[in-house]
Amino acid sequence: MGDTFGKLFRVTTFGESHGAALGVTIDGCPPGLALDEAAIQSELDRRRPGQSKLTTQRKEPDRAEILSGAFEGQTLGTALTMLFRNKDVDSSKYLNMKDLYRPSHADYTYEARYGLRDWRGGGRASARETVARVAAGAIARQVLQAHFPGLEVVAWVSQVGAVTSDVDADTVTAAAVDAHITRCPEPEAAAAMEARIHAARKAKDTVGGVVSCVARNVPAGWGEPVFDKLEADLAKAMMSIPAAKGVEVGSGFGGILMAGSEHNDAFVTVDGETRTETNYSGGIQGGISNGMPILLRTAFKPVATHFQTQRTVNRQGEAATFAARGRHDPCVLPRAVPIVEAMVCLTLCDHMLRTAALLR
Amino acid sequence: MGDTFGKLFRVTTFGESHGAALGVTIDGCPPGLALDEAAIQSELDRRRPGQSKLTTQRKEPDRAEILSGAFEGQTLGTALTMLFRNKDVDSSKYLNMKDLYRPSHADYTYEARYGLRDWRGGGRASARETVARVAAGAIARQVLQAHFPGLEVVAWVSQVGAVTSDVDADTVTAAAVDAHITRCPEPEAAAAMEARIHAARKAKDTVGGVVSCVARNVPAGWGEPVFDKLEADLAKAMMSIPAAKGVEVGSGFGGILMAGSEHNDAFVTVDGETRTETNYSGGIQGGISNGMPILLRTAFKPVATHFQTQRTVNRQGEAATFAARGRHDPCVLPRAVPIVEAMVCLTLCDHMLRTAALLR
Amino acid sequence: MGDTFGKLFRVTTFGESHGAALGVTIDGCPPGLALDEAAIQSELDRRRPGQSKLTTQRKEPDRAEILSGAFEGQTLGTALTMLFRNKDVDSSKYLNMKDLYRPSHADYTYEARYGLRDWRGGGRASARETVARVAAGAIARQVLQAHFPGLEVVAWVSQVGAVTSDVDADTVTAAAVDAHITRCPEPEAAAAMEARIHAARKAKDTVGGVVSCVARNVPAGWGEPVFDKLEADLAKAMMSIPAAKGVEVGSGFGGILMAGSEHNDAFVTVDGETRTETNYSGGIQGGISNGMPILLRTAFKPVATHFQTQRTVNRQGEAATFAARGRHDPCVLPRAVPIVEAMVCLTLCDHMLRTAALLR
Amino acid sequence: MGDTFGKLFRVTTFGESHGAALGVTIDGCPPGLALDEAAIQSELDRRRPGQSKLTTQRKEPDRAEILSGAFEGQTLGTALTMLFRNKDVDSSKYLNMKDLYRPSHADYTYEARYGLRDWRGGGRASARETVARVAAGAIARQVLQAHFPGLEVVAWVSQVGAVTSDVDADTVTAAAVDAHITRCPEPEAAAAMEARIHAARKAKDTVGGVVSCVARNVPAGWGEPVFDKLEADLAKAMMSIPAAKGVEVGSGFGGILMAGSEHNDAFVTVDGETRTETNYSGGIQGGISNGMPILLRTAFKPVATHFQTQRTVNRQGEAATFAARGRHDPCVLPRAVPIVEAMVCLTLCDHMLRTAALLR
Repeated sequence: MGDTFGKLFRVTTFGESHGAALGVTIDGCPPGLALDEAAIQSELDRRRPGQSKLTTQRKEPDRAEILSGAFEGQTLGTALTMLFRNKDVDSSKYLNMKDLYRPSHADYTYEARYGLRDWRGGGRASARETVARVAAGAIARQVLQAHFPGLEVVAWVSQVGAVTSDVDADTVTAAAVDAHITRCPEPEAAAAMEARIHAARKAKDTVGGVVSCVARNVPAGWGEPVFDKLEADLAKAMMSIPAAKGVEVGSGFGGILMAGSEHNDAFVTVDGETRTETNYSGGIQGGISNGMPILLRTAFKPVATHFQTQRTVNRQGEAATFAARGRHDPCVLPRAVPIVEAMVCLTLCDHMLRTAALLR
Repeated sequence: MGDTFGKLFRVTTFGESHGAALGVTIDGCPPGLALDEAAIQSELDRRRPGQSKLTTQRKEPDRAEILSGAFEGQTLGTALTMLFRNKDVDSSKYLNMKDLYRPSHADYTYEARYGLRDWRGGGRASARETVARVAAGAIARQVLQAHFPGLEVVAWVSQVGAVTSDVDADTVTAAAVDAHITRCPEPEAAAAMEARIHAARKAKDTVGGVVSCVARNVPAGWGEPVFDKLEADLAKAMMSIPAAKGVEVGSGFGGILMAGSEHNDAFVTVDGETRTETNYSGGIQGGISNGMPILLRTAFKPVATHFQTQRTVNRQGEAATFAARGRHDPCVLPRAVPIVEAMVCLTLCDHMLRTAALLR
Repeated sequence: MGDTFGKLFRVTTFGESHGAALGVTIDGCPPGLALDEAAIQSELDRRRPGQSKLTTQRKEPDRAEILSGAFEGQTLGTALTMLFRNKDVDSSKYLNMKDLYRPSHADYTYEARYGLRDWRGGGRASARETVARVAAGAIARQVLQAHFPGLEVVAWVSQVGAVTSDVDADTVTAAAVDAHITRCPEPEAAAAMEARIHAARKAKDTVGGVVSCVARNVPAGWGEPVFDKLEADLAKAMMSIPAAKGVEVGSGFGGILMAGSEHNDAFVTVDGETRTETNYSGGIQGGISNGMPILLRTAFKPVATHFQTQRTVNRQGEAATFAARGRHDPCVLPRAVPIVEAMVCLTLCDHMLRTAALLR
Repeated sequence: MGDTFGKLFRVTTFGESHGAALGVTIDGCPPGLALDEAAIQSELDRRRPGQSKLTTQRKEPDRAEILSGAFEGQTLGTALTMLFRNKDVDSSKYLNMKDLYRPSHADYTYEARYGLRDWRGGGRASARETVARVAAGAIARQVLQAHFPGLEVVAWVSQVGAVTSDVDADTVTAAAVDAHITRCPEPEAAAAMEARIHAARKAKDTVGGVVSCVARNVPAGWGEPVFDKLEADLAKAMMSIPAAKGVEVGSGFGGILMAGSEHNDAFVTVDGETRTETNYSGGIQGGISNGMPILLRTAFKPVATHFQTQRTVNRQGEAATFAARGRHDPCVLPRAVPIVEAMVCLTLCDHMLRTAALLR
């Protein structure tokens, strides 16, 4: 029952990397939304393999077939399913991994949990599953913007290995992010990141990094107290993305070095609206949005699949070695950007609906 | 509906800081558990205000009254409720905050969400709510250990401001943690942390830090793929704790600086069991536990309530100043330790039950 | 996890018949509702034991203590808990049932499920649990009427044993229902029912019946298609009441004898509104309310506790006999009326919030 | 969010009658089950249109394509999706209903709820949705029988219009049920029912009836107290089936005429097992199964689509008449049998998993 996300905007994904298809059902999508299919496709294209020389060359069109829940271009309010047939499947590259556990992959843990696994392409554990999230997230974004036209969710690559960037979260645009194949909107840092990724690939190795994300013009009052705090649900959303190892909101781990008197965000009235002078809170206080930009940073580990020989054990517990074959990204960061945005949109959309249920 | 945590071991807390009582209901507690009430109280005492000179001096006995769900010392399997009457309530210290928004508190956001708030002692947003979590977490720990006697969850203060410590997660014990009022098990670091907290108090200021946590002897196979990954649910659990701003699992943000070939945890067979040589994964791969220690780090911001004069606005949007009164912790870290453990126990217990539902 | 009802207006009850207390937490109660505590008490008084010579003489004041979720008379939007201390507990009458299974009670099944049971007064299986439902239902009714002032939910006893009544669901009032201790609003039938109940008591026996219920002025558009149809959730609500054995909506079992051409409810326009000429649908079509009165009938079996000697087996499987002692209702129907209304209000309130989440 | 059923064995269906496809995702199907695809198809064939002269002649192969969640014939434990492409779609017969509300259909209520509807073939409200339930139910049955090989769920048509039958729930078999196209296992009654259905068709009318169902060899201990009682969840399951108007468990409405002393089911020990002499409880006491056969009866109204001219209003509120065209069943009862069984299997399977989560 872990394949479902959200309480009111409920998203269930299904499918294995080398199975017949992947897909997603949204149970709880509001009715009467004029679906912008081009916008859905545009998000899918940002996640698609083969989009640049930095990514895996698997060829998947990743076109969403809408099977249900829409009629004459509008959402019906009932379960909306989108399907993605797998096209470019080559399981032969995984045959040598069938009986051993790839380090830092989910091979061993899936077997420990289920007693069996689909070893082809990582099966259900493959990041290919995120195609379904991106499609659902694109619809969530449309639902959000139908009600709050100014609401924007923009993510970007802010760090690759040791290469960092300095980006203004208040002004960064999706166009600037997409202007470079690294999806870092700061040109110099972007160039350095690209070089860092090529160096990793050349070394038959991989590299990690950080995706930052801002949600602007989220109204004050979204999020729940206690357990379903907005930052808690966002943290869960981020940590559910393959390869994520850490998440921070606002000042995050860096805030530890500040005094409380520095860290507090003083309230001020600007143009009749309550704002804060600083935003160390990252747009959320006590679990609820305060109208300031929501700021998130998510750490992604270096991809587990590199091309050096690795030691491991097989299913009989005997020592073994293997080297990966197939098509793999040396760095997931550029393709993680639309996934992060999708998960933020799904979380915000769920909380928008939950806020509506307060009947205020 | 944000007051409930868990899918099978469902915990709902209720109560305001200065209201009649706080409490918690567990819906889904397995039957036939011989409740160790002393162990529950012991956890509550670790969270209790007034336990040391580092904490607020509010006097609350925080004794759990078990209202339901137990009979002759055993859990019945039906809803188990524990109640905590508030005893030492003095709302007068909050009267001056009734009509203004304390910076980096939830005053403004609760009003934005609900249109009203209980301003006495922070109301529902007060960290006093965590008394209920700690009591439920103590029962979760008992349920876990009834089925996995070796399973241990130990948290400790690993950083206060810039003061860090070096603790071995494989061997640290609760006794070592509780040996010092800072709950840092490394004596030298503990002394430095204590000094740091006193310095903050002296400066009428506050200080943040990090709580680390290890869960040892969790069997392989707990956690769900895709959305309800074990690390995702743990991240949500951590970020639902008041003042938490960031969380990382295993290598976390630090793992970004490693190459994939370094970061991968090679599998080995030790005494017939599958283990990993390193544990950068932090005991979880692909959302599912692998039998290695689960490692978490949670960042807590400096407490918002300090004793310097602060600028803010009132409910009419006019500039205002105020200074906190009342009883407050200059640093929440020592008392956060049992809360972190409680939330980890609640998450693990929920996933233990979810794993049982696989019928393997 | 079966102690919770509803998806957005989530109600969790707790407590055993002879334990310390019963209670209920509402997670998801909209904020800003001015609570009418007298109206809550009035509903509780209708369910209370000892209210007439037809009911058990256990003396319970059943006064709701509101522990949380309200401030200065208004709901806060956070978890609202109400508590009922058990006062008039005498478990001695149950000692002889401790080791045997009362026929058609839950003694055997609770032990089969949980391995133990609280044998005092039926424990968690006692209908005393419904005090918590009635209190929550009274709040649900207030939430409903705050948004739809004309919305009314009225239940009545329409049958006791073979004694039936003929009541107009379009006009029946709560005052007429409460005018007679049987809660049948038709005086002649009421008198016959009262005689029937006295006859049962005299025979040391019990008698069942039917509670009918109408919900008037429910707007069109509440309820979900497919699984959470309004009639499905209402049926679940009814069948969750102790002793309920059947439920029907609109024409129910009687509709089987009609032709489709008779049974269809023709649409007409009345005062600019879409109505139906007949109402065999019972106000619901395809799972969604159509604006006509919602009509329900629920069958209650004769109470299992009568005062004749009964054969059964004990926990060792040996044949045994026993006779009930203590205080028991010969007929639950009059006290079931407020419980039926409460469950209908809880169901409707949950669906009102779910409809709000459509964002139309 | 009403398209999902179950808490642990979570089934979400999607699709419109004349859309691209229908389908179902099971989130929570236990792993390692060897899927019997022939058995799934066999259930689908029992529900399929065109199977006999009593049913609609729409030609749909209704073959389940398994898209995910299975590998080499075994369930993986992750989301399992089955797809049904619509083949024989002819929406032209519905053009005349596009702007008016068919009486006792969901046209008006869907529009009231969602503001729009897919008018082709009833859209989401069409009983064609149940193809997805039957496929999921077939898997649920396999999961149940993998753990309890003797567990059987058998439904049959026990009444059509005024024609009743007398069938022994303890011994009735699926083979006997399927021996006649009415799915009544009593030959004489079956013949009378067939005649009754033909008479309805001849009169351009429709007829309703009752489906009875027995679940044998369900172990004692399934079901939850309070709200998620087994009978409550079964009642919801039944009332979620299109055209269902009433449901009863055990003695049901008939039990009202019995005295408590007659109605109680005396416990006896038979071959070392606790049984009851009679079974008026219908296999459930206090919400939990007692090991006796579970007995259900569900009333289905006469189908709303008949071929006589009907009065109604159009979307502008003006009086209108229309006559149905297209392919329709004069009586849904024979095809309702596999749907009832499917919903009972889904409910039982969910409760089997919930019982496993008790960790006993």
